[in-house]
Amino acid sequence: MTIQQMLLAIPAAGVLALIYAAATSYWIKGRDAGNERMKNIALQIQRGAMAFLRAEYSVLLGFVALVAFGLYMLNRAEPTSDPLVALSFVAGAIASGVAGFFGMRVATQANVRTAAAARTGLPPALQIAFRGGAVMGMSVVGLALLGLGSLFWFYLGQFQVDVAGLDQPINSFRFSKVINVLAGFSMGASSIALFARVGGGIYTKAADVGADLVGKVEAGIPEDHFLNPATIADNVGDNVGDVAGMGADLFESYVGSIIGAMILGAIAVHGGFEAALLPLILAAVGIVVSIIGTVVVRTKEGGNPQHALDAGAFGSAAVMLGLSYFIIDYFVKMAGPGGIQFAEFDGPLQTLHLFYPMVIGLVAGVAIGLVTSHYCSKNKGPVNGIVEQSKTGAATNLIAGIGVGFQSTAIPIILIAGAIYVANLYAGLYGIALAALGMLSTTGIQLAVDAYGPISDNAGGIAEMSGLPSKVRERTDNLDAVGNTTAAIGKGFAIASAALAALSLFAAYRKLALGETDIILTDPEVLIGLLVGGMLPFLFSAMAMKAVGDAAMDMIQEVRRQFKDIPVLREALTLVARAEEEERELTEEEDAQVLEAGKKTEVEKCVAISTQASLKRMVMPGVLAIGAPLVIGWWSPFALGGLLAGTLTSGVMLAIFMSNAGGAWDNAKKQVEEQKKSLEKNTGKGSERHKAAVIGDTVGDPFKDTAGPSLNILIKLMTIVAVVIAPHINPDKEQVAEAARQLEAQLQQADGAKAGDAKAADQPKAEQANES
Amino acid sequence: MTIQQMLLAIPAAGVLALIYAAATSYWIKGRDAGNERMKNIALQIQRGAMAFLRAEYSVLLGFVALVAFGLYMLNRAEPTSDPLVALSFVAGAIASGVAGFFGMRVATQANVRTAAAARTGLPPALQIAFRGGAVMGMSVVGLALLGLGSLFWFYLGQFQVDVAGLDQPINSFRFSKVINVLAGFSMGASSIALFARVGGGIYTKAADVGADLVGKVEAGIPEDHFLNPATIADNVGDNVGDVAGMGADLFESYVGSIIGAMILGAIAVHGGFEAALLPLILAAVGIVVSIIGTVVVRTKEGGNPQHALDAGAFGSAAVMLGLSYFIIDYFVKMAGPGGIQFAEFDGPLQTLHLFYPMVIGLVAGVAIGLVTSHYCSKNKGPVNGIVEQSKTGAATNLIAGIGVGFQSTAIPIILIAGAIYVANLYAGLYGIALAALGMLSTTGIQLAVDAYGPISDNAGGIAEMSGLPSKVRERTDNLDAVGNTTAAIGKGFAIASAALAALSLFAAYRKLALGETDIILTDPEVLIGLLVGGMLPFLFSAMAMKAVGDAAMDMIQEVRRQFKDIPVLREALTLVARAEEEERELTEEEDAQVLEAGKKTEVEKCVAISTQASLKRMVMPGVLAIGAPLVIGWWSPFALGGLLAGTLTSGVMLAIFMSNAGGAWDNAKKQVEEQKKSLEKNTGKGSERHKAAVIGDTVGDPFKDTAGPSLNILIKLMTIVAVVIAPHINPDKEQVAEAARQLEAQLQQADGAKAGDAKAADQPKAEQANES
Repeated sequence: MTIQQMLLAIPAAGVLALIYAAATSYWIKGRDAGNERMKNIALQIQRGAMAFLRAEYSVLLGFVALVAFGLYMLNRAEPTSDPLVALSFVAGAIASGVAGFFGMRVATQANVRTAAAARTGLPPALQIAFRGGAVMGMSVVGLALLGLGSLFWFYLGQFQVDVAGLDQPINSFRFSKVINVLAGFSMGASSIALFARVGGGIYTKAADVGADLVGKVEAGIPEDHFLNPATIADNVGDNVGDVAGMGADLFESYVGSIIGAMILGAIAVHGGFEAALLPLILAAVGIVVSIIGTVVVRTKEGGNPQHALDAGAFGSAAVMLGLSYFIIDYFVKMAGPGGIQFAEFDGPLQTLHLFYPMVIGLVAGVAIGLVTSHYCSKNKGPVNGIVEQSKTGAATNLIAGIGVGFQSTAIPIILIAGAIYVANLYAGLYGIALAALGMLSTTGIQLAVDAYGPISDNAGGIAEMSGLPSKVRERTDNLDAVGNTTAAIGKGFAIASAALAALSLFAAYRKLALGETDIILTDPEVLIGLLVGGMLPFLFSAMAMKAVGDAAMDMIQEVRRQFKDIPVLREALTLVARAEEEERELTEEEDAQVLEAGKKTEVEKCVAISTQASLKRMVMPGVLAIGAPLVIGWWSPFALGGLLAGTLTSGVMLAIFMSNAGGAWDNAKKQVEEQKKSLEKNTGKGSERHKAAVIGDTVGDPFKDTAGPSLNILIKLMTIVAVVIAPHINPDKEQVAEAARQLEAQLQQADGAKAGDAKAADQPKAEQANES
Repeated sequence: MTIQQMLLAIPAAGVLALIYAAATSYWIKGRDAGNERMKNIALQIQRGAMAFLRAEYSVLLGFVALVAFGLYMLNRAEPTSDPLVALSFVAGAIASGVAGFFGMRVATQANVRTAAAARTGLPPALQIAFRGGAVMGMSVVGLALLGLGSLFWFYLGQFQVDVAGLDQPINSFRFSKVINVLAGFSMGASSIALFARVGGGIYTKAADVGADLVGKVEAGIPEDHFLNPATIADNVGDNVGDVAGMGADLFESYVGSIIGAMILGAIAVHGGFEAALLPLILAAVGIVVSIIGTVVVRTKEGGNPQHALDAGAFGSAAVMLGLSYFIIDYFVKMAGPGGIQFAEFDGPLQTLHLFYPMVIGLVAGVAIGLVTSHYCSKNKGPVNGIVEQSKTGAATNLIAGIGVGFQSTAIPIILIAGAIYVANLYAGLYGIALAALGMLSTTGIQLAVDAYGPISDNAGGIAEMSGLPSKVRERTDNLDAVGNTTAAIGKGFAIASAALAALSLFAAYRKLALGETDIILTDPEVLIGLLVGGMLPFLFSAMAMKAVGDAAMDMIQEVRRQFKDIPVLREALTLVARAEEEERELTEEEDAQVLEAGKKTEVEKCVAISTQASLKRMVMPGVLAIGAPLVIGWWSPFALGGLLAGTLTSGVMLAIFMSNAGGAWDNAKKQVEEQKKSLEKNTGKGSERHKAAVIGDTVGDPFKDTAGPSLNILIKLMTIVAVVIAPHINPDKEQVAEAARQLEAQLQQADGAKAGDAKAADQPKAEQANES
């Protein structure tokens, strides 16, 4: 394959993924969407979700325009950078937004169709839910590679880089400019991801906490009941938080780890182009493997669905790993006799030197997933401990859960440390970046399995709200449980890849901001940065938690008001609660009355509360994430180095703590609910132990679904902002710029003929110079 | 003053403090100890506390012997170090232990006498409680300066340092050896402090949680009632945790900040001896000021006790600050025309350069204390928020409290960062060490005010248990509240000084372990250290929380068993609970019956549970704190640098978070209890809101009294361990050792006469050489 062919193969793989996504989406739309009541509920959810996304995107539009303008102005007269970074930023933001939009639209179609299919059996429901997830997965990786690949190709031409002559200073200078400009794409993606995760997280948890506390606890009606006006908001929240938020999150991780590896590859002393291209090609092949994996899941449906999903996800990862060896080998040879060589090693790296880091990354990611799953799973030590401690009330339940969350940081960190050690041993910082890539190359199918969970969950909500037989709800609950192992491993990947990608971007920052100067840990400026950076994840989490708490209070008050002020609703609630207490079904007459009352709920007011709260409250955390590196960086690039290290250190710990404590409380509650009900033994639903477990679960909600997952993005967004501003805060900026100007000037002289060209001042054509 | 006089003045100041402590202790012993019942209860508390201390010390004896042996063996053949470091270690451990013993013995005498005095009025009770605290304060600073001062004097002679000739390599080499050997004292103090804080914290919270949950919640009897067999254990816990634990903690901070400043002073290129002596002299003058301050509090008793305490503490700090200027000025002049000069500055430092860091340290400490107090005080924004959120239950109370704790990290960190910036600007790393010293120079009186709190608290417990009129309990409660502002500021000092002292010790470690080599933040080994170090405070806190949870469960089961198995106790409980419910006093006959039943409680079993649990569970956290730097350091001194920075970063945040969240929950509960009782409005005692607030308070208990305060010690202990092992893990160890040998050998040749001396190989006498 020629280099041009490879460069075009990257966006082509992206297009392939998008075609697959579009075809699957079309197929889903053709499935049966159930009866009128189901359609109606699904429409409400879809409208709420789309309305939120529209509102969110219109807020973000202003933000993106502002940042793009800032990037344009900042870079317009810099010889070491280029205003095109604003284009990359906008492209990254739009691609992330579009991926979220596609994914959520299909998820809101797939949920009701999954519920409809669940009326006949498990396999057809699985098929629809999984394919709904696959559309999300393929949209994310497709748009990412389409964007990155075409921008890379475009910039290489625009800056006239002769990729075969990177050993010449001018080419290597221009090539590093290409990579730096490309980093804007990652910044765009991370910005959108942060807002999507924080906004979506606030939305979903405000609605969830509000709906449960008034509906289940106060009024005594079942979860997700249509008489509860917050239920639609709760289901909308599942889509904007768990589907769109997660999609933007993984889009960001995927792009960030590719860009991180490209930047570190490009600084190779030999074979820099090959080292920078390799991550993109690995990702492109990963897409093809993911598509095949998705198809395999389809054909095996007749058997055990759990096995089919696992086989699809694990099989794809294993196949991809095998292929990686040959791709790496091809690239090492392509780089010629000098091979791919970094300053810190003597001689070129061998194929295995680059392969082992990918293996260790994948192994560490899987191991972290299994550890995470151990800490959060029912009937295992940690959750058993919480269930036991719930016996003596909420206080001991909470102390135990926090203890479990704290403790669960230990092994994952040791595994990440081990992965860093091995990856660095074989291939230095580039190896660390490859380790992150090893986990994320098959993001397409992993995300399909992840997104499948909330679709099944939503299907269950729709089944409940439409009054479908309880068997349907049972089936969707089973569906939800099927993907758990894979989802846990996905969580492990998210944590480990975030840490590794942030580390590689951090190394890239140092290189771009300080050249050969080092960041000294005992320098007081660095220590100041470290402390302030270590504090930011706490402040950020405080903002997210407070937003959820306040919005949930508003939601609770609105639901209470409706229950009080709407007479027919009040009567219907009494009917349902009484039937619940007597453990009987409603009579036909009662059912009709309740159904009629349900039409009087002012659902849109609850949707508006969640929407307004999340839009208003997502702004400050976002400003913090982008503002902190700007302010500190302009004061001191060394302090910014400390800031990034500090945020990474405490952010990773808090993220692991919060998501695992939240997961453990959630499953402790479920485990209590599965116990045999006995007030004597203080077990099962309705017991004091159950009440304690419900409190723990509620505290865990904003931990695991709002603050926790946002922290991974916070870490990377701050790092990528630092990377993008790095050339501007370089203390030797003037010398670097002067050297760049001289390089360009020399080339102009040598190549006098085209000197009059309008673009020559910024980007002189220099192909001939490379040949001389 | 001659240098010899100054050197002797340091231990003399220590002796002065000890004389004051002994005299005050004697005075306290002479006060009225109340009626038989009070004496009996006080005796039980004292016996329990002393039994615990004996058991703890016998466990620690083995530990101290083991570490001392290790230090001896490690340093016996090192020319850059000396086996005497083992002596320093043992001395530090013993001094800390003795201070804890003295302080606690007098506290357990003062508590009952305070209760007895409170029968007549507030002023005499204040006098006894405050003087009890003063004994603790003076024992701590007295033993610290006696130990440090006499060891310093002894080592200067032992290593034959000519302090006037420090510009000669051999003298400067020997002097740095003196300082390194002295650092062992700090390691001994920190080790004991960690065990005392963790052990004491587990003890007190296991008893507290256990006693409250069964007594107050289940049986419905008042807090601290003598029918509850866990009450004595609870009161013992207050002494071993809040008095002995806090004393050891402040002993460690005080010594650590002095040693940190000495090490950094000693590396001055000129005036190193003056810079190293200055911290000791400041501390010695601080003792005298503290004693005078304590006397001032005594004379002003007639007025408002709040003002008297504040005037004593603040006045001492202000006077000390003023004196510091003149002391610094004297030392700057004493250093001669070259002055005190560091490599990073051109020319000698002026008096103000050294004075400003002390001022900024004190200002930052006070400001942090005020911020801390804002976040934790009743009727202020954060606590009001928690009270408001408690309306909707325990879950929202907890989410709000965690949010407040997270948020409360922001301003203190910015203040610490500002202090680092200013201190570094004027006097570099030595300035940062002086900033820590600025806060701690009047530890004597600060600790008196801090320790006064638990003594008053205990007095209240004794009043309750002895059935004294409720007026007495009210007076002791008032007493407890009086010192709150000063105590909050003490908390601010603890956090800020820990961070600053750890930073200066960290810089000292770098210098000792790596000479002129730097620790590069982007080095993968450093990053591995950073991540693992960031994780340790989480793992450590998990261990502490789990220990409290498990021990509390054991306590709960034991109390339940006694309530069930002892018939007379069961009957008495019913009587008391009924009287409580009917809000009436017991009849005389009932009272006699209850009193008789109280004698049947098996108090010693509850004491044994707390004692066993805390002794068993304090070991692992201690091993972690000492083992981690050893293991990582021997792998890589660079990784150890990262480890220390990581632990500092996440440890400071967790410590602030935990202590403030715990404090806020505590006061939110108190604020709810002060509300007018109304089930309609959901306010006051007995309301659902109150139940939610009690759960928050219980979760906060191990946060603020076990894990939180231990983290400050963890950070410093790990750093001081690193300082002590630094010469042994230096990668250039052999060159450094060879240079040292050559230096000593040259001196031996020049001074042939004494070559045959037995000690000559290690410590050649070289006074003459210095004069040549």
